[in-house]
Amino acid sequence: MATNQEEVKLLGSVGSAFVCRVQIALELKGIEYKFVPENLANKSELLLKYNPVYKKIPVFVHNEKPISESLVILEYIDETWTQNPILPFEPYQRALARFWSKFIDEKIVAASVKAVHIIDDDKEREKNVAETSDSLGFLENELKDKFFGGEEIGFVDIAAVFIAFWIPLIQDVTGLQLLTAEKFPKLYKWSQEFLNHPIVKQCLPPRDPVFAYFKAHYDSLIASK
Amino acid sequence: MATNQEEVKLLGSVGSAFVCRVQIALELKGIEYKFVPENLANKSELLLKYNPVYKKIPVFVHNEKPISESLVILEYIDETWTQNPILPFEPYQRALARFWSKFIDEKIVAASVKAVHIIDDDKEREKNVAETSDSLGFLENELKDKFFGGEEIGFVDIAAVFIAFWIPLIQDVTGLQLLTAEKFPKLYKWSQEFLNHPIVKQCLPPRDPVFAYFKAHYDSLIASK
Repeated sequence: MATNQEEVKLLGSVGSAFVCRVQIALELKGIEYKFVPENLANKSELLLKYNPVYKKIPVFVHNEKPISESLVILEYIDETWTQNPILPFEPYQRALARFWSKFIDEKIVAASVKAVHIIDDDKEREKNVAETSDSLGFLENELKDKFFGGEEIGFVDIAAVFIAFWIPLIQDVTGLQLLTAEKFPKLYKWSQEFLNHPIVKQCLPPRDPVFAYFKAHYDSLIASK
Repeated sequence: MATNQEEVKLLGSVGSAFVCRVQIALELKGIEYKFVPENLANKSELLLKYNPVYKKIPVFVHNEKPISESLVILEYIDETWTQNPILPFEPYQRALARFWSKFIDEKIVAASVKAVHIIDDDKEREKNVAETSDSLGFLENELKDKFFGGEEIGFVDIAAVFIAFWIPLIQDVTGLQLLTAEKFPKLYKWSQEFLNHPIVKQCLPPRDPVFAYFKAHYDSLIASK
Protein backbone atom coordinates (compact mmCIF):
# COMPACT_ATOMS: atom_id res chain seq x y z
CA MET A 1 0.00 0.00 0.00
CA ALA A 2 1.31 3.43 -0.87
CA THR A 3 2.19 5.34 2.27
CA ASN A 4 1.84 9.08 2.77
CA GLN A 5 5.46 9.46 1.76
CA GLU A 6 4.78 7.94 -1.63
CA GLU A 7 3.35 9.65 -4.66
CA VAL A 8 1.75 7.40 -7.23
CA LYS A 9 0.33 8.97 -10.38
CA LEU A 10 -1.07 7.59 -13.59
CA LEU A 11 -1.23 9.81 -16.65
CA GLY A 12 -3.99 8.35 -18.74
CA SER A 13 -7.18 8.73 -20.62
CA VAL A 14 -10.52 6.98 -20.12
CA GLY A 15 -11.09 4.50 -22.92
CA SER A 16 -7.48 3.35 -23.36
CA ALA A 17 -6.94 -0.40 -22.96
CA PHE A 18 -3.30 0.22 -22.05
CA VAL A 19 -4.20 2.60 -19.25
CA CYS A 20 -6.88 0.18 -18.07
CA ARG A 21 -4.22 -2.53 -17.67
CA VAL A 22 -2.31 -0.37 -15.20
CA GLN A 23 -5.49 0.52 -13.32
CA ILE A 24 -6.40 -3.15 -12.87
CA ALA A 25 -2.90 -3.93 -11.55
CA LEU A 26 -3.03 -1.03 -9.09
CA GLU A 27 -6.49 -1.99 -7.84
CA LEU A 28 -5.50 -5.66 -7.48
CA LYS A 29 -2.57 -4.58 -5.33
CA GLY A 30 -4.62 -2.05 -3.39
CA ILE A 31 -2.36 0.88 -4.32
CA GLU A 32 -3.80 4.36 -4.00
CA TYR A 33 -2.96 6.58 -6.94
CA LYS A 34 -3.88 9.83 -8.57
CA PHE A 35 -5.33 9.62 -12.07
CA VAL A 36 -4.09 12.53 -14.18
CA PRO A 37 -6.31 12.83 -17.26
CA GLU A 38 -4.56 13.54 -20.54
CA ASN A 39 -6.12 15.09 -23.60
CA LEU A 40 -4.42 13.33 -26.49
CA ALA A 41 -5.50 16.03 -28.91
CA ASN A 42 -3.51 18.50 -26.80
CA LYS A 43 -0.79 16.64 -24.94
CA SER A 44 0.40 18.13 -21.67
CA GLU A 45 3.92 19.36 -20.99
CA LEU A 46 4.09 16.69 -18.30
CA LEU A 47 3.36 13.88 -20.77
CA LEU A 48 5.97 15.17 -23.23
CA LYS A 49 8.50 15.49 -20.41
CA TYR A 50 7.82 12.05 -18.96
CA ASN A 51 7.50 10.12 -22.22
CA PRO A 52 9.56 12.03 -24.78
CA VAL A 53 10.13 8.87 -26.82
CA TYR A 54 6.56 7.80 -27.58
CA LYS A 55 4.54 10.76 -26.19
CA LYS A 56 1.87 8.21 -25.29
CA ILE A 57 -0.21 7.17 -22.32
CA PRO A 58 -0.08 5.45 -19.92
CA VAL A 59 2.78 6.99 -18.00
CA PHE A 60 3.13 5.71 -14.46
CA VAL A 61 4.93 8.03 -12.06
CA HIS A 62 6.20 6.76 -8.73
CA ASN A 63 7.86 9.40 -6.56
CA GLU A 64 8.57 11.55 -9.63
CA LYS A 65 10.12 8.63 -11.54
CA PRO A 66 8.22 8.02 -14.79
CA ILE A 67 7.76 4.68 -16.55
CA SER A 68 6.13 4.16 -19.95
CA GLU A 69 4.81 1.11 -21.82
CA SER A 70 2.01 -0.74 -20.06
CA LEU A 71 3.68 -4.16 -19.81
CA VAL A 72 6.85 -2.59 -18.41
CA ILE A 73 4.71 -0.71 -15.89
CA LEU A 74 2.94 -3.94 -14.83
CA GLU A 75 6.30 -5.61 -14.12
CA TYR A 76 7.42 -2.58 -12.09
CA ILE A 77 4.23 -2.59 -10.04
CA ASP A 78 4.57 -6.32 -9.40
CA GLU A 79 8.19 -5.94 -8.25
CA THR A 80 7.56 -2.86 -6.12
CA TRP A 81 4.38 -3.97 -4.35
CA THR A 82 4.69 -7.70 -3.87
CA GLN A 83 1.20 -8.43 -2.43
CA ASN A 84 -1.24 -10.25 -4.75
CA PRO A 85 1.40 -11.20 -7.33
CA ILE A 86 0.51 -10.67 -10.98
CA LEU A 87 3.30 -12.72 -12.54
CA PRO A 88 3.62 -16.39 -11.55
CA PHE A 89 6.44 -17.35 -9.20
CA GLU A 90 8.14 -20.02 -11.32
CA PRO A 91 10.57 -18.71 -14.01
CA TYR A 92 9.16 -20.85 -16.84
CA GLN A 93 5.60 -19.76 -16.09
CA ARG A 94 6.81 -16.16 -15.92
CA ALA A 95 8.44 -16.57 -19.34
CA LEU A 96 5.19 -17.90 -20.79
CA ALA A 97 3.23 -14.99 -19.29
CA ARG A 98 5.66 -12.51 -20.84
CA PHE A 99 5.53 -14.32 -24.18
CA TRP A 100 1.72 -14.31 -24.42
CA SER A 101 1.38 -10.70 -23.28
CA LYS A 102 3.85 -9.58 -25.95
CA PHE A 103 1.92 -11.75 -28.41
CA ILE A 104 -1.34 -9.98 -27.53
CA ASP A 105 0.24 -6.61 -28.31
CA GLU A 106 2.13 -7.64 -31.43
CA LYS A 107 -0.46 -9.89 -33.03
CA ILE A 108 -3.95 -9.23 -31.67
CA VAL A 109 -3.91 -5.51 -30.88
CA ALA A 110 -1.89 -4.68 -33.99
CA ALA A 111 -3.97 -6.73 -36.46
CA SER A 112 -7.40 -5.86 -35.05
CA VAL A 113 -6.66 -2.14 -34.97
CA LYS A 114 -5.40 -2.37 -38.57
CA ALA A 115 -8.60 -4.22 -39.56
CA VAL A 116 -10.61 -1.26 -38.22
CA HIS A 117 -8.62 1.33 -40.11
CA ILE A 118 -8.21 -0.38 -43.48
CA ILE A 119 -11.55 0.42 -45.02
CA ASP A 120 -10.68 0.85 -48.68
CA ASP A 121 -8.90 -2.46 -49.28
CA ASP A 122 -11.12 -5.50 -48.65
CA LYS A 123 -8.32 -7.98 -49.19
CA GLU A 124 -5.97 -6.28 -46.74
CA ARG A 125 -8.78 -5.91 -44.20
CA GLU A 126 -9.63 -9.60 -44.56
CA LYS A 127 -5.97 -10.46 -44.02
CA ASN A 128 -5.92 -8.59 -40.72
CA VAL A 129 -9.23 -10.11 -39.61
CA ALA A 130 -7.78 -13.55 -40.37
CA GLU A 131 -4.58 -12.74 -38.48
CA THR A 132 -6.58 -11.60 -35.46
CA SER A 133 -8.63 -14.76 -35.66
CA ASP A 134 -5.58 -17.05 -35.94
CA SER A 135 -4.01 -15.32 -32.97
CA LEU A 136 -7.16 -15.62 -30.86
CA GLY A 137 -7.06 -19.33 -31.77
CA PHE A 138 -3.59 -19.66 -30.22
CA LEU A 139 -4.88 -18.06 -27.01
CA GLU A 140 -7.99 -20.28 -27.02
CA ASN A 141 -5.65 -23.30 -26.94
CA GLU A 142 -3.57 -21.73 -24.20
CA LEU A 143 -6.46 -21.25 -21.81
CA LYS A 144 -6.42 -24.19 -19.39
CA ASP A 145 -8.13 -22.77 -16.28
CA LYS A 146 -10.72 -20.19 -15.36
CA PHE A 147 -8.18 -17.44 -16.03
CA PHE A 148 -4.82 -17.41 -17.83
CA GLY A 149 -3.36 -16.89 -14.35
CA GLY A 150 -5.19 -20.00 -13.00
CA GLU A 151 -7.93 -19.44 -10.44
CA GLU A 152 -6.92 -15.79 -10.05
CA ILE A 153 -6.33 -13.18 -12.73
CA GLY A 154 -2.69 -12.55 -13.62
CA PHE A 155 -0.37 -10.82 -16.08
CA VAL A 156 -1.83 -12.33 -19.27
CA ASP A 157 -5.44 -11.72 -18.18
CA ILE A 158 -4.61 -8.07 -17.52
CA ALA A 159 -2.84 -7.73 -20.89
CA ALA A 160 -5.86 -9.40 -22.48
CA VAL A 161 -8.32 -6.78 -21.21
CA PHE A 162 -8.09 -5.50 -24.78
CA ILE A 163 -9.62 -8.78 -25.96
CA ALA A 164 -12.39 -8.89 -23.36
CA PHE A 165 -13.58 -5.28 -23.59
CA TRP A 166 -12.19 -3.60 -26.68
CA ILE A 167 -12.55 -6.40 -29.25
CA PRO A 168 -16.34 -6.63 -28.67
CA LEU A 169 -16.50 -2.84 -29.07
CA ILE A 170 -14.64 -3.12 -32.37
CA GLN A 171 -17.12 -5.81 -33.43
CA ASP A 172 -20.14 -3.71 -32.56
CA VAL A 173 -18.78 -0.63 -34.30
CA THR A 174 -17.50 -2.32 -37.47
CA GLY A 175 -19.62 -5.44 -37.79
CA LEU A 176 -16.44 -7.54 -38.07
CA GLN A 177 -16.71 -10.93 -36.37
CA LEU A 178 -13.63 -11.49 -34.23
CA LEU A 179 -14.39 -12.99 -30.82
CA THR A 180 -17.60 -14.98 -30.83
CA ALA A 181 -18.80 -17.75 -28.51
CA GLU A 182 -19.10 -20.05 -31.53
CA LYS A 183 -15.54 -19.56 -32.80
CA PHE A 184 -13.76 -19.35 -29.46
CA PRO A 185 -15.95 -20.83 -26.72
CA LYS A 186 -13.25 -20.95 -24.02
CA LEU A 187 -11.95 -17.47 -24.74
CA TYR A 188 -15.47 -16.09 -24.87
CA LYS A 189 -16.32 -17.68 -21.52
CA TRP A 190 -13.06 -16.28 -20.11
CA SER A 191 -13.98 -12.80 -21.34
CA GLN A 192 -17.32 -12.94 -19.49
CA GLU A 193 -15.70 -14.17 -16.25
CA PHE A 194 -13.00 -11.55 -16.56
CA LEU A 195 -15.34 -8.63 -17.23
CA ASN A 196 -17.40 -9.67 -14.21
CA HIS A 197 -14.44 -9.85 -11.86
CA PRO A 198 -15.13 -7.17 -9.22
CA ILE A 199 -11.72 -5.48 -9.57
CA VAL A 200 -11.83 -5.49 -13.37
CA LYS A 201 -15.41 -4.21 -13.38
CA GLN A 202 -14.51 -1.12 -11.40
CA CYS A 203 -11.59 -0.31 -13.74
CA LEU A 204 -13.41 -0.61 -17.05
CA PRO A 205 -14.49 2.59 -18.75
CA PRO A 206 -18.24 3.20 -19.16
CA ARG A 207 -19.20 1.35 -22.33
CA ASP A 208 -21.64 3.81 -23.92
CA PRO A 209 -19.40 6.88 -24.24
CA VAL A 210 -16.46 4.75 -25.41
CA PHE A 211 -18.71 3.10 -27.98
CA ALA A 212 -19.98 6.50 -29.12
CA TYR A 213 -16.41 7.80 -29.42
CA PHE A 214 -15.27 4.79 -31.47
CA LYS A 215 -18.40 4.90 -33.60
CA ALA A 216 -17.87 8.57 -34.44
CA HIS A 217 -14.23 7.85 -35.29
CA TYR A 218 -15.20 4.93 -37.50
CA ASP A 219 -17.98 6.84 -39.21
CA SER A 220 -15.54 9.62 -40.05
CA LEU A 221 -13.19 7.02 -41.57
CA ILE A 222 -16.03 5.64 -43.68
CA ALA A 223 -17.12 9.15 -44.70
CA SER A 224 -13.59 10.00 -45.88
CA LYS A 225 -13.34 6.77 -47.89
CA MET B 1 25.94 -23.69 -13.95
CA ALA B 2 24.06 -26.38 -15.82
CA THR B 3 24.49 -29.73 -14.10
CA ASN B 4 24.57 -33.12 -15.78
CA GLN B 5 20.87 -33.46 -15.06
CA GLU B 6 20.06 -30.36 -17.06
CA GLU B 7 19.67 -30.05 -20.77
CA VAL B 8 20.15 -26.61 -22.24
CA LYS B 9 19.69 -26.16 -25.97
CA LEU B 10 19.59 -23.17 -28.26
CA LEU B 11 17.97 -23.49 -31.67
CA GLY B 12 19.59 -20.81 -33.74
CA SER B 13 21.44 -19.73 -36.79
CA VAL B 14 24.82 -18.03 -37.11
CA GLY B 15 24.32 -14.43 -38.16
CA SER B 16 21.14 -13.71 -36.20
CA ALA B 17 21.37 -10.80 -33.76
CA PHE B 18 18.55 -12.29 -31.69
CA VAL B 19 20.33 -15.63 -31.31
CA CYS B 20 23.55 -13.79 -30.48
CA ARG B 21 21.79 -12.03 -27.57
CA VAL B 22 21.01 -15.40 -26.00
CA GLN B 23 24.54 -16.67 -26.58
CA ILE B 24 26.03 -13.63 -24.83
CA ALA B 25 23.73 -14.13 -21.83
CA LEU B 26 24.60 -17.82 -21.58
CA GLU B 27 28.33 -17.16 -21.81
CA LEU B 28 28.14 -14.35 -19.24
CA LYS B 29 26.47 -16.76 -16.85
CA GLY B 30 28.81 -19.62 -17.70
CA ILE B 31 26.00 -21.95 -18.79
CA GLU B 32 26.94 -24.88 -20.99
CA TYR B 33 24.51 -25.39 -23.84
CA LYS B 34 24.10 -27.22 -27.08
CA PHE B 35 23.74 -25.07 -30.19
CA VAL B 36 21.27 -26.66 -32.60
CA PRO B 37 21.70 -25.05 -36.03
CA GLU B 38 18.53 -24.23 -37.91
CA ASN B 39 18.23 -23.79 -41.66
CA LEU B 40 15.63 -21.05 -42.05
CA ALA B 41 15.04 -22.01 -45.67
CA ASN B 42 13.98 -25.44 -44.47
CA LYS B 43 12.73 -25.17 -40.90
CA SER B 44 13.06 -28.27 -38.72
CA GLU B 45 10.13 -30.15 -37.20
CA LEU B 46 11.61 -29.26 -33.83
CA LEU B 47 11.47 -25.51 -34.54
CA LEU B 48 7.85 -25.73 -35.74
CA LYS B 49 6.94 -27.77 -32.68
CA TYR B 50 8.70 -25.48 -30.21
CA ASN B 51 7.69 -22.15 -31.73
CA PRO B 52 4.41 -22.75 -33.58
CA VAL B 53 3.41 -19.11 -33.20
CA TYR B 54 6.30 -17.33 -34.88
CA LYS B 55 8.31 -20.25 -36.32
CA LYS B 56 11.43 -18.18 -35.64
CA ILE B 57 14.78 -18.51 -33.95
CA PRO B 58 16.03 -18.28 -31.27
CA VAL B 59 14.23 -20.96 -29.32
CA PHE B 60 15.78 -21.72 -25.95
CA VAL B 61 15.01 -25.15 -24.54
CA HIS B 62 15.65 -25.94 -20.88
CA ASN B 63 14.86 -29.52 -19.88
CA GLU B 64 12.50 -29.87 -22.86
CA LYS B 65 10.65 -26.64 -22.03
CA PRO B 66 10.86 -24.21 -24.96
CA ILE B 67 10.90 -20.41 -24.77
CA SER B 68 10.79 -18.03 -27.71
CA GLU B 69 11.46 -14.31 -28.15
CA SER B 70 15.00 -13.23 -27.28
CA LEU B 71 14.15 -10.67 -24.58
CA VAL B 72 11.81 -13.16 -22.87
CA ILE B 73 14.62 -15.73 -23.00
CA LEU B 74 17.08 -13.28 -21.44
CA GLU B 75 14.73 -12.68 -18.50
CA TYR B 76 14.30 -16.44 -18.04
CA ILE B 77 18.04 -17.03 -18.05
CA ASP B 78 18.57 -14.21 -15.54
CA GLU B 79 15.91 -15.61 -13.19
CA THR B 80 17.03 -19.24 -13.52
CA TRP B 81 20.79 -18.75 -13.17
CA THR B 82 21.26 -15.85 -10.80
CA GLN B 83 25.07 -15.49 -11.02
CA ASN B 84 26.36 -12.42 -12.93
CA PRO B 85 22.98 -10.66 -13.08
CA ILE B 86 21.97 -9.13 -16.41
CA LEU B 87 19.08 -6.99 -15.19
CA PRO B 88 19.77 -4.42 -12.46
CA PHE B 89 18.57 -5.17 -8.94
CA GLU B 90 16.45 -2.08 -8.34
CA PRO B 91 12.88 -2.15 -9.79
CA TYR B 92 13.07 1.29 -11.41
CA GLN B 93 16.38 0.48 -13.10
CA ARG B 94 14.89 -2.86 -14.23
CA ALA B 95 11.92 -1.00 -15.73
CA LEU B 96 14.25 1.32 -17.63
CA ALA B 97 16.27 -1.65 -18.93
CA ARG B 98 13.07 -3.31 -20.17
CA PHE B 99 11.85 -0.06 -21.72
CA TRP B 100 15.07 0.58 -23.69
CA SER B 101 15.41 -3.01 -24.85
CA LYS B 102 11.84 -2.97 -26.20
CA PHE B 103 12.67 0.39 -27.78
CA ILE B 104 15.68 -1.11 -29.58
CA ASP B 105 13.46 -3.80 -31.11
CA GLU B 106 10.49 -1.61 -31.95
CA LYS B 107 12.29 1.47 -33.19
CA ILE B 108 15.88 0.71 -34.18
CA VAL B 109 15.71 -2.86 -35.48
CA ALA B 110 12.37 -2.29 -37.21
CA ALA B 111 13.30 1.00 -38.93
CA SER B 112 16.82 0.03 -39.96
CA VAL B 113 15.70 -3.30 -41.43
CA LYS B 114 12.94 -1.45 -43.32
CA ALA B 115 15.51 1.06 -44.61
CA VAL B 116 17.48 -1.85 -46.09
CA HIS B 117 14.47 -3.38 -47.81
CA ILE B 118 12.77 -0.29 -49.20
CA ILE B 119 14.85 0.27 -52.29
CA ASP B 120 12.30 1.63 -54.74
CA ASP B 121 10.92 4.51 -52.66
CA ASP B 122 13.58 7.07 -51.73
CA LYS B 123 11.25 9.09 -49.54
CA GLU B 124 10.11 6.06 -47.52
CA ARG B 125 13.70 4.87 -47.18
CA GLU B 126 14.79 8.31 -46.01
CA LYS B 127 11.98 8.28 -43.44
CA ASN B 128 13.24 5.01 -41.98
CA VAL B 129 16.84 6.20 -41.96
CA ALA B 130 15.70 9.33 -40.11
CA GLU B 131 13.70 7.25 -37.63
CA THR B 132 16.72 5.00 -36.97
CA SER B 133 18.83 8.08 -36.48
CA ASP B 134 16.37 9.76 -34.10
CA SER B 135 16.16 6.56 -32.08
CA LEU B 136 19.93 6.20 -31.88
CA GLY B 137 19.94 9.79 -30.62
CA PHE B 138 17.70 8.81 -27.69
CA LEU B 139 20.11 6.01 -26.79
CA GLU B 140 23.11 8.34 -27.13
CA ASN B 141 21.55 10.53 -24.44
CA GLU B 142 20.80 7.52 -22.29
CA LEU B 143 24.39 6.31 -22.17
CA LYS B 144 25.91 7.59 -18.93
CA ASP B 145 28.64 5.05 -18.18
CA LYS B 146 30.98 2.74 -20.05
CA PHE B 147 28.07 0.39 -20.72
CA PHE B 148 24.29 0.80 -20.45
CA GLY B 149 24.62 -1.61 -17.52
CA GLY B 150 27.26 0.60 -15.84
CA GLU B 151 30.80 -0.79 -15.56
CA GLU B 152 29.59 -4.23 -16.66
CA ILE B 153 27.44 -5.17 -19.62
CA GLY B 154 23.76 -5.76 -18.87
CA PHE B 155 20.35 -6.31 -20.43
CA VAL B 156 20.31 -3.21 -22.67
CA ASP B 157 23.87 -3.79 -23.88
CA ILE B 158 22.97 -7.33 -24.85
CA ALA B 159 19.80 -6.17 -26.63
CA ALA B 160 21.91 -3.52 -28.36
CA VAL B 161 24.30 -6.04 -29.93
CA PHE B 162 22.23 -5.37 -33.05
CA ILE B 163 23.46 -1.75 -32.96
CA ALA B 164 27.11 -2.61 -32.34
CA PHE B 165 27.54 -5.39 -34.88
CA TRP B 166 24.62 -5.47 -37.32
CA ILE B 167 24.11 -1.73 -37.93
CA PRO B 168 27.71 -1.31 -39.18
CA LEU B 169 27.14 -4.31 -41.45
CA ILE B 170 23.99 -2.66 -42.81
CA GLN B 171 26.02 0.51 -43.39
CA ASP B 172 28.76 -1.30 -45.25
CA VAL B 173 26.33 -3.25 -47.42
CA THR B 174 23.96 -0.38 -48.26
CA GLY B 175 26.08 2.74 -47.92
CA LEU B 176 23.47 4.21 -45.55
CA GLN B 177 25.00 6.29 -42.74
CA LEU B 178 23.40 5.26 -39.44
CA LEU B 179 25.89 4.92 -36.58
CA THR B 180 28.96 7.08 -37.11
CA ALA B 181 31.49 8.43 -34.60
CA GLU B 182 30.64 11.97 -35.74
CA LYS B 183 26.88 11.69 -35.24
CA PHE B 184 26.85 9.56 -32.09
CA PRO B 185 30.27 9.74 -30.40
CA LYS B 186 29.21 8.11 -27.11
CA LEU B 187 27.26 5.32 -28.78
CA TYR B 188 30.07 4.71 -31.24
CA LYS B 189 32.61 4.48 -28.40
CA TRP B 190 30.25 2.13 -26.55
CA SER B 191 29.97 -0.08 -29.63
CA GLN B 192 33.78 -0.44 -29.80
CA GLU B 193 34.07 -1.26 -26.08
CA PHE B 194 31.20 -3.71 -26.35
CA LEU B 195 32.52 -5.52 -29.42
CA ASN B 196 35.90 -5.88 -27.69
CA HIS B 197 34.44 -7.33 -24.51
CA PRO B 198 35.93 -10.86 -24.29
CA ILE B 199 32.55 -12.58 -23.78
CA VAL B 200 30.86 -10.63 -26.57
CA LYS B 201 33.80 -11.22 -28.90
CA GLN B 202 33.52 -14.98 -28.62
CA CYS B 203 29.75 -14.90 -29.35
CA LEU B 204 29.82 -12.70 -32.45
CA PRO B 205 29.53 -14.44 -35.80
CA PRO B 206 32.52 -14.21 -38.16
CA ARG B 207 32.09 -10.91 -39.98
CA ASP B 208 33.12 -11.88 -43.51
CA PRO B 209 30.59 -14.64 -44.25
CA VAL B 210 27.77 -12.65 -42.62
CA PHE B 211 28.75 -9.62 -44.71
CA ALA B 212 28.84 -11.78 -47.85
CA TYR B 213 25.41 -13.22 -47.05
CA PHE B 214 23.84 -9.78 -46.47
CA LYS B 215 25.57 -8.36 -49.53
CA ALA B 216 24.20 -11.15 -51.76
CA HIS B 217 20.72 -10.60 -50.28
CA TYR B 218 20.93 -6.86 -50.86
CA ASP B 219 22.29 -7.25 -54.38
CA SER B 220 19.38 -9.53 -55.24
CA LEU B 221 16.96 -6.87 -53.92
CA ILE B 222 18.63 -4.24 -56.09
CA ALA B 223 18.60 -6.57 -59.11
CA SER B 224 14.86 -7.19 -58.71
CA LYS B 225 14.15 -3.46 -58.40
